[in-house]
Amino acid sequence: MIATEPNFEKAFSERLSRLHQPGQHGLANLFRILNHLCVITVEKAQASIQDNMVPMPREMVPIESCLNRVLAEPLLADRDLPPFNRSTFDGFAIASQEAVNGGKTFSIEATAFAGEAEMHLQNSKACIEIMTGAPVPRGTDCVIKIEDTDTDGAVVQLKDGVIPKPGLGIHPQGSDAQANHELLAPGCRMTAKEMAIAASIGKSELLVTKDPCISIVTTGDELVDIATHPLPHQIRRSNDLSLLLALRSAGYQQVERFHLSDDPEETEAFVADALSELDILVLAGGVSKGKKDYLPKALENAGVHKAFQWVSQRPGKPLWFGVSDVSPLRTRVFALPGNPVSCFTCLHRYVIPALNLSSGLNREYVFQALLKKPFRFAPPLTLFLPATLSIDETARSWATPLPFNTSGDFVSVAGTDGFLELPAQQTEFEKGTALPFHPWSV
Amino acid sequence: MIATEPNFEKAFSERLSRLHQPGQHGLANLFRILNHLCVITVEKAQASIQDNMVPMPREMVPIESCLNRVLAEPLLADRDLPPFNRSTFDGFAIASQEAVNGGKTFSIEATAFAGEAEMHLQNSKACIEIMTGAPVPRGTDCVIKIEDTDTDGAVVQLKDGVIPKPGLGIHPQGSDAQANHELLAPGCRMTAKEMAIAASIGKSELLVTKDPCISIVTTGDELVDIATHPLPHQIRRSNDLSLLLALRSAGYQQVERFHLSDDPEETEAFVADALSELDILVLAGGVSKGKKDYLPKALENAGVHKAFQWVSQRPGKPLWFGVSDVSPLRTRVFALPGNPVSCFTCLHRYVIPALNLSSGLNREYVFQALLKKPFRFAPPLTLFLPATLSIDETARSWATPLPFNTSGDFVSVAGTDGFLELPAQQTEFEKGTALPFHPWSV
Repeated sequence: MIATEPNFEKAFSERLSRLHQPGQHGLANLFRILNHLCVITVEKAQASIQDNMVPMPREMVPIESCLNRVLAEPLLADRDLPPFNRSTFDGFAIASQEAVNGGKTFSIEATAFAGEAEMHLQNSKACIEIMTGAPVPRGTDCVIKIEDTDTDGAVVQLKDGVIPKPGLGIHPQGSDAQANHELLAPGCRMTAKEMAIAASIGKSELLVTKDPCISIVTTGDELVDIATHPLPHQIRRSNDLSLLLALRSAGYQQVERFHLSDDPEETEAFVADALSELDILVLAGGVSKGKKDYLPKALENAGVHKAFQWVSQRPGKPLWFGVSDVSPLRTRVFALPGNPVSCFTCLHRYVIPALNLSSGLNREYVFQALLKKPFRFAPPLTLFLPATLSIDETARSWATPLPFNTSGDFVSVAGTDGFLELPAQQTEFEKGTALPFHPWSV
Repeated sequence: MIATEPNFEKAFSERLSRLHQPGQHGLANLFRILNHLCVITVEKAQASIQDNMVPMPREMVPIESCLNRVLAEPLLADRDLPPFNRSTFDGFAIASQEAVNGGKTFSIEATAFAGEAEMHLQNSKACIEIMTGAPVPRGTDCVIKIEDTDTDGAVVQLKDGVIPKPGLGIHPQGSDAQANHELLAPGCRMTAKEMAIAASIGKSELLVTKDPCISIVTTGDELVDIATHPLPHQIRRSNDLSLLLALRSAGYQQVERFHLSDDPEETEAFVADALSELDILVLAGGVSKGKKDYLPKALENAGVHKAFQWVSQRPGKPLWFGVSDVSPLRTRVFALPGNPVSCFTCLHRYVIPALNLSSGLNREYVFQALLKKPFRFAPPLTLFLPATLSIDETARSWATPLPFNTSGDFVSVAGTDGFLELPAQQTEFEKGTALPFHPWSV
């Protein structure tokens, strides 16, 4: 699927008719126009990606390994929850009617411990001593707290003012959920509390969405290892780490990273291998027009067809997306611009939402935040603006953008919580404008 | 430190003087009053815990293991960032003055690749072909995009309308940060972007706060393993899992869990061992007044002194907190009520903030949210109310509380995002009231 601007032909011929310089310059202008027309909007780029994602398969996974996975089956209560009338106090179980009838003292017939089978009160004028968590004995309908009684160990006396009512001190059978009630729906992320629910109904393994196989690839001979002392013209590699860890934080664990030197054969061999086993290939840099950018050719040779390149956004205009029709997993390829801010922003704007869609996650992370100071941006581009979030006393979210800097200063991004999305159609943004805010994955 | 209500003596003698029933009932009332007076507020409980926490020691950790750890040193730029004037385009580096002087064509002197040392333009009327990421050659002050030129490979011609300006296409040396500038301050959590910054300055290991050693202990013979098919009076253990995973999600990885059967000797032996090696001991249940609650005695025998028990809150009133003065790490002991909602709420309200304080984390997670529907709660207790969060089109956060249920229904907590804190002094809460919202750790 190739995504382009609407009315391509009309726009193209209009612009062509305005060409006033024939010859070489006319041709140059023609290419410039073609290039401009091939730039698609953020919305179209997103739609193109979404159209090309398919649901991930499902797999059974032991519960210990399910933290942050996406549930792919409904979880039903295996029995009533709680499974019996459960005492919520340490105290004495009685028949409340006896107290209503004037009973104040109750002889202790037995003691009910948690973990023991339900008992049966023999004498309705007596009581059973009971511990928190124990089944409330048949023949009783309330539990009096130990603090509300006086006892010598054989007989219990209710304190003045204590009025037993049916149900007091009892967490009734089935009151949290009846057997077969749906406790969790497919699509939820398995965080601590969902894991506890799965455990409480005895799910020692769960049907979850398969974790996609992802590789992150950086290229460029100027990039060296963290531990290397770089020469003045070298830079330590960090994009691959920020992408890897952001994906992990977003719940995707099957991520590896590779660095390719600027070598055409190595690049070709890597791409062929990668496509044979990956769901997602994320390239950081190396798809521009430089003489040593061997990736575009390698991808083309490997049968990856481009869905789009060039998006009317800043940062991240050169974003490239393609799909392999020949690889077994129909590998999706995201080529992110190499600039660290572009790279990190495009990962959050496109790659993570695409993974969430494929995984069937039923949750949306974008929300509205108010611009903390007026902002002007004239180019007809969607602007992604890293910003710090704060929530005021009236519960309104405010996003304070970084001082604007076109350099892609990753250093200052550290203090931010995500980015605002300023639509392309608008130039002036007043303080207090509500805009979509995309939080970084943490 | 024992935290009690202010003016204890005054309140006590006032209430004592109001006793109208001498004898046995008088004594019972006396105990009830004493009990009431020992219940402390949420604020005092929090202050007591904070007073008893000490900063965790610091340790050097390889960067690969630092995700989500708390930084304990400032990170300084090791050199200017970027370390050289870096080309942001594939194109041609020229001296802009030449173009201002009317120059339109430039012969190509050489090619500058990323990863190679800075070049030097020999002839100011010529240009150097340059790749993205390469050092901008001395003698040039701008980079013209390849798209803005026509070239036959030997000579470059600027397209009409292209006006070279100094600095165009250059990410200047030191513009992100100058050498020795503080990039990250101690106290920040090392998420993906902070890790990338550490990598970019060559920190292959980092000084971070030590991860506290934590054990979670459940007790009770009624609790069985996930994989067990429980008898009607048994319940599968899940509190330990929800606490463990919530702590891990909050960034604390050194957490283990244990289940003790209702056996006094096993309990004593476990407590003695635990205190010899733990920073934090979290007990889920087992410190109430039941006949098989052996933990209070075991803790006392092991030299753990109680800082407080009973907090004027719902859920979680029986919350107990103590400190061991004799154990090598001055183990802090949190005894959370066994009810799953109480347990999970108290972990987020007290334990995680205490760990964050000890770790030197410079971040606060509580924020204001608006109550989505009116609520009434008369008892003089702080109410923790699980709620679902949504952010409206005007960027306001709304918290919709669960249907109110005193049973501690953990099942319905699954759909919530955290809990609202309703202060004890107030009974009626209108729709739109701004209240503190504590998000669950995810």
